[in-house]
Amino acid sequence: MKPVLRVGLIGSGFMGKAHVFGFAAAERVFDLPFRVELAVIADATMAQAEAARAALGFARASDDWRSMVADPDIDLVDITAPNALHKEMALAAIAAGKHVYCEKPLAPLAADARAMADAAEAAGVKTQVGFNYLCNPMLRLARAMIEAGELGEIRGYRGLHAEDYMADADAPWGFRHDPAGGGALADIGSHALATAEFLIGPVATVMGDCVTVIGSRPDGQGGSRAVAVDDIGRAFLRFANGASGSIEANWLATGRKMQHDFEVWGSKGALSFSQERFNELHFYSTDDAPGRRGFRRIEAAPDHAPYGRFCVAPGHQLGFNDLKAIEVAGYLDAIAGGAPEPFNFRAGLRIQTLVEAIHASSGARAWRDIPAG
Amino acid sequence: MKPVLRVGLIGSGFMGKAHVFGFAAAERVFDLPFRVELAVIADATMAQAEAARAALGFARASDDWRSMVADPDIDLVDITAPNALHKEMALAAIAAGKHVYCEKPLAPLAADARAMADAAEAAGVKTQVGFNYLCNPMLRLARAMIEAGELGEIRGYRGLHAEDYMADADAPWGFRHDPAGGGALADIGSHALATAEFLIGPVATVMGDCVTVIGSRPDGQGGSRAVAVDDIGRAFLRFANGASGSIEANWLATGRKMQHDFEVWGSKGALSFSQERFNELHFYSTDDAPGRRGFRRIEAAPDHAPYGRFCVAPGHQLGFNDLKAIEVAGYLDAIAGGAPEPFNFRAGLRIQTLVEAIHASSGARAWRDIPAG
Amino acid sequence: MKPVLRVGLIGSGFMGKAHVFGFAAAERVFDLPFRVELAVIADATMAQAEAARAALGFARASDDWRSMVADPDIDLVDITAPNALHKEMALAAIAAGKHVYCEKPLAPLAADARAMADAAEAAGVKTQVGFNYLCNPMLRLARAMIEAGELGEIRGYRGLHAEDYMADADAPWGFRHDPAGGGALADIGSHALATAEFLIGPVATVMGDCVTVIGSRPDGQGGSRAVAVDDIGRAFLRFANGASGSIEANWLATGRKMQHDFEVWGSKGALSFSQERFNELHFYSTDDAPGRRGFRRIEAAPDHAPYGRFCVAPGHQLGFNDLKAIEVAGYLDAIAGGAPEPFNFRAGLRIQTLVEAIHASSGARAWRDIPAG
Amino acid sequence: MKPVLRVGLIGSGFMGKAHVFGFAAAERVFDLPFRVELAVIADATMAQAEAARAALGFARASDDWRSMVADPDIDLVDITAPNALHKEMALAAIAAGKHVYCEKPLAPLAADARAMADAAEAAGVKTQVGFNYLCNPMLRLARAMIEAGELGEIRGYRGLHAEDYMADADAPWGFRHDPAGGGALADIGSHALATAEFLIGPVATVMGDCVTVIGSRPDGQGGSRAVAVDDIGRAFLRFANGASGSIEANWLATGRKMQHDFEVWGSKGALSFSQERFNELHFYSTDDAPGRRGFRRIEAAPDHAPYGRFCVAPGHQLGFNDLKAIEVAGYLDAIAGGAPEPFNFRAGLRIQTLVEAIHASSGARAWRDIPAG
Repeated sequence: MKPVLRVGLIGSGFMGKAHVFGFAAAERVFDLPFRVELAVIADATMAQAEAARAALGFARASDDWRSMVADPDIDLVDITAPNALHKEMALAAIAAGKHVYCEKPLAPLAADARAMADAAEAAGVKTQVGFNYLCNPMLRLARAMIEAGELGEIRGYRGLHAEDYMADADAPWGFRHDPAGGGALADIGSHALATAEFLIGPVATVMGDCVTVIGSRPDGQGGSRAVAVDDIGRAFLRFANGASGSIEANWLATGRKMQHDFEVWGSKGALSFSQERFNELHFYSTDDAPGRRGFRRIEAAPDHAPYGRFCVAPGHQLGFNDLKAIEVAGYLDAIAGGAPEPFNFRAGLRIQTLVEAIHASSGARAWRDIPAG
Repeated sequence: MKPVLRVGLIGSGFMGKAHVFGFAAAERVFDLPFRVELAVIADATMAQAEAARAALGFARASDDWRSMVADPDIDLVDITAPNALHKEMALAAIAAGKHVYCEKPLAPLAADARAMADAAEAAGVKTQVGFNYLCNPMLRLARAMIEAGELGEIRGYRGLHAEDYMADADAPWGFRHDPAGGGALADIGSHALATAEFLIGPVATVMGDCVTVIGSRPDGQGGSRAVAVDDIGRAFLRFANGASGSIEANWLATGRKMQHDFEVWGSKGALSFSQERFNELHFYSTDDAPGRRGFRRIEAAPDHAPYGRFCVAPGHQLGFNDLKAIEVAGYLDAIAGGAPEPFNFRAGLRIQTLVEAIHASSGARAWRDIPAG
Repeated sequence: MKPVLRVGLIGSGFMGKAHVFGFAAAERVFDLPFRVELAVIADATMAQAEAARAALGFARASDDWRSMVADPDIDLVDITAPNALHKEMALAAIAAGKHVYCEKPLAPLAADARAMADAAEAAGVKTQVGFNYLCNPMLRLARAMIEAGELGEIRGYRGLHAEDYMADADAPWGFRHDPAGGGALADIGSHALATAEFLIGPVATVMGDCVTVIGSRPDGQGGSRAVAVDDIGRAFLRFANGASGSIEANWLATGRKMQHDFEVWGSKGALSFSQERFNELHFYSTDDAPGRRGFRRIEAAPDHAPYGRFCVAPGHQLGFNDLKAIEVAGYLDAIAGGAPEPFNFRAGLRIQTLVEAIHASSGARAWRDIPAG
Repeated sequence: MKPVLRVGLIGSGFMGKAHVFGFAAAERVFDLPFRVELAVIADATMAQAEAARAALGFARASDDWRSMVADPDIDLVDITAPNALHKEMALAAIAAGKHVYCEKPLAPLAADARAMADAAEAAGVKTQVGFNYLCNPMLRLARAMIEAGELGEIRGYRGLHAEDYMADADAPWGFRHDPAGGGALADIGSHALATAEFLIGPVATVMGDCVTVIGSRPDGQGGSRAVAVDDIGRAFLRFANGASGSIEANWLATGRKMQHDFEVWGSKGALSFSQERFNELHFYSTDDAPGRRGFRRIEAAPDHAPYGRFCVAPGHQLGFNDLKAIEVAGYLDAIAGGAPEPFNFRAGLRIQTLVEAIHASSGARAWRDIPAG
């Protein structure tokens, strides 16, 4: 009989729902080390919490996250509340000895993220930040190929995360436009940075170029409010292994919905990927015969774990929510002690550190070293 | 408080699991008219059934589908047993007044499928056959665009379903090679036919070309066994509305994993689609300005219901299992009386009728009319 | 010093101009066995002929093709006049001992094409029909790969030639709508058939499905004129080597400008091609490692002769007119005796034979054997 | 009767041949203001020059470019000699009053390029540098769309020129590895810069990141020779109109043969282009109806001048050499006074200025302003 893992979820908005989908799907798709019990859902008001409880299948509802976090009948606290609250909630949960699963960004400031990571490690609880693009079997394949030397020595990298959800200049000012932690680089460039380090290893030095294009937005009250965050954030990168690269974050990329792309070149091969078609990885190898070389469109298949958990036939394709199930399953394996944490608070801190370094570099118009660790 | 729908599932293999995923996901993604209770799972032996019960979360296990089907505490019987058993199981369930959900093909022979459809209609129960590709929001968009006249008058159609799962001539003889209902046309051509009629309307006349390429396969006992089913099945089509078209089914299409494609041309527009990238629909319109025309890659988004149920942001992509959730949700709406059955036994019979007509036409080397209804 | 080849061209319209481009480019790109002399251009009137002479660089102009064809100072007669005149002109040129280059179709009726081929062979002159898509280095690569067994045993084929130049129902009746030789199958299906036989070998049996969609067109005088030719022509094919396939010709394919595509599957590999991107050939091989297989986009390069004649660097791409230069060079090599004729009148007859057999099959609604040779 | 333009060509290597193809094709495809006479070809030795004369159809051969440049029977001097000789040859030709057509780069150093541009303008002769990618009808379409406001206000740009012709570390040291003017940025980044300014307008400020990856190469004599030029050159850009962007030049991009790509986003539309498929331009417009938006693949057609000069039918595709013909035609129109010079020495200087500024910025690890003009 599997042990039970009792989940307390804070927040019932889009990401809260996505986490519940993730837990539910993970339980049926994977052979999890726990039976997941959706114990408590907490939201700002009892009415919201109760509605979410009924819709999402939790046992209890709460309008008091503090008492929920302290509840001895909760094993894991899952935080999908607004970013500004992540730190307080996580530290309270860690103090109560809970495992903590927190949506990205871990915290708007690296210093806060560091405090959270330090606390979790001191307490010995398992943590996770939701960087679900990394859970894609094709990204794992890409990393495995790079590590196995299928591309030879890695020489260069180009990463990208572009969407157009801020392209409408008439859309109102919102929390993402707050200089404390917002902007395209923090919001989606964080994904580009996570993928870059996932594939190539640590970044050592950066040169940033962060640009505000839409300088003010409607404040919803007939006036306008200044926007100081970056709409486009670019960076040159030097990796610790000597390779160079670049990333771009862009939330004004009209027409682009999910251009989380990369291209990496090695001395004997290359990979090209777009999240727009994330069940494919394109691979070029100089091992192929002359006259027969070309980028090869590898389609996700049971060869590429854990795709086979979802479907026994190749080419049927995973969806975005399936990536969330993989994320959950990896985290639960880590809690059970069977594997390292896939993307813990320390990793989340790392991304914030990179974002802040790029911002600082852009402001200073100068290269900046990334502190190790 | 929502009424409960108690499900009894027969079969715990790949499709059984996929159905459970579908029920679980549907319940969290959609606002279903029922609360689904996974009541009983039946399999060939008690050991298999009990293992599946524990893994998939059913309340009870059974090794006797007959008694499960007659159980007054079951509302819906879900059949994912081997094709040859579909008829007996479904008729028993219908006789007991249950709603019946049956994996495709409904039955190897159209005559059997007809008996099942007749029985279900006489009993007034709701039925469903699993043609999940039709549940794709982009296919629904395609149909809506055609119906709204966005392509003008429909002039031609080309459909396809090609995979390579039978391309290895050394793979052993299996139940799909049995002339009673097997072959590429029945197995996957059925999808191409379902999509053709979904988009363009009823087929009136067919000319078939069914080819056996690999004439015998290993019998698993050191010998070989003759294969008489089609490896490639082609048909010319005349639709009732006067348009002409063609389909091809091919399970020897080396390299193809999910080439369920179509292209349709009208007097003022065209659509092109591939299941290989099923979150996209390509649309050409002569309404665009000269010099600015081209096939437009529309990415699945909340604009295309029910995509928004899964994700509030465009371009994040649905997966194969999500299509199953849409299939379940549509069926439950029909059971609740809120919508017509999306693909009932009569529709399943229709596909078998088309398959048999194409086989007969190919054998006779002559065009064949499709009986109406 | 190279011998001179004196060309007499009949017709100065689009194809006449394209032939001149072809001769001019071939001379500079290839090391031709002749120095080409643009000796005489003949057109319907002296004014037209003289204008073309000046524009295209011929030495003399003529309004009398008969005397030009008989002129002892002409070595090669190049016919780009209307189809209905091909036979008379070609037979006269052959009778005068000239080599004859004739635009496709060789003649509207196979019987006429046969007379032309017979005459040329009896006279020992070299002939050529302009099927320039076959001159594409990527098509030659495809054939070489098939012949070398890189795909294993060939199991199936799907070919296509779709455009939309007749999609406007208000466009007036023209010579292509004349039942004597017109229609989509004759006009562009001929290309699909030529490619099919180029790659797979002779077709042995066909079943046709030719459809008239737009039954009448404006006659340019306020009335309308009936159209009896096929707008869409489909065929099932059986090749002499036992493989099966299909082709489709469609000139109502709204949005398609050059969908001359094919896909061929063998026991260990497959090829996919589209003329829309004709500098690419997509190749799938089961020789690739499991988990690393996929269609590989091979880009035209100096590896693929005669690409290197045009450009020493890969990926720079050939254009449509470059294919014409390759066509000319191959023909001149044949005239010099260094190679067989690439696509002579006998080959042109073959295509007409196939077209007529498909038309006849469609009319009779029955399969038809193709006469050998 | 058209006036004659007598061409003297220096150099008979790949680019010399390409220029001759360009002249020959331009003369037949366009209605040029001159009749081009291939008068003299000069090369290092008389043997080389004579061989080239015979092969390429020049009237005379020469091993003395100086006397050719001074020859009163020459109107236009076309320089395809090694880069290091461009300046001396061009100044001599300008001094003799000739029009000068020079392959790119105009000169390894901006100061030299400036002297050449100044001299040409003082002498009133017409000049041209060969930036043929800009001659693509689809790039001209892109610029026209941007200028017409079809994308709205321009907000960002990403450009690229990546190939893999230097990816083999065992390939020997060559002139492109010489710090005086070589490197990926100068060699192919120059194209990326030219396209960026062609589309968006002048660059005002740059931040460079130039990286040497392969530090030494075989010297062809058993030893090795240090390489100091950039293998990868990146730059952030600020355009004079306020938009920001980036470019990357990379000659180690394994698998890439012609990745001259760009993407540009405006407030109401976007364009995406790849030279890998240079007969296509992808256009997204927010003017399209919601639910029907997507990148639209516009194929080159007679709508997009001067495509129609080459082919009257859409989608047939231009090749690389056709772009050279367009380049020649534009230059000859300028010589005849009918149009401004498409890409004169001043424009060539501009590109060298940008390249030097990016190199300087990279070396100084600091942003650099671009001098106007």
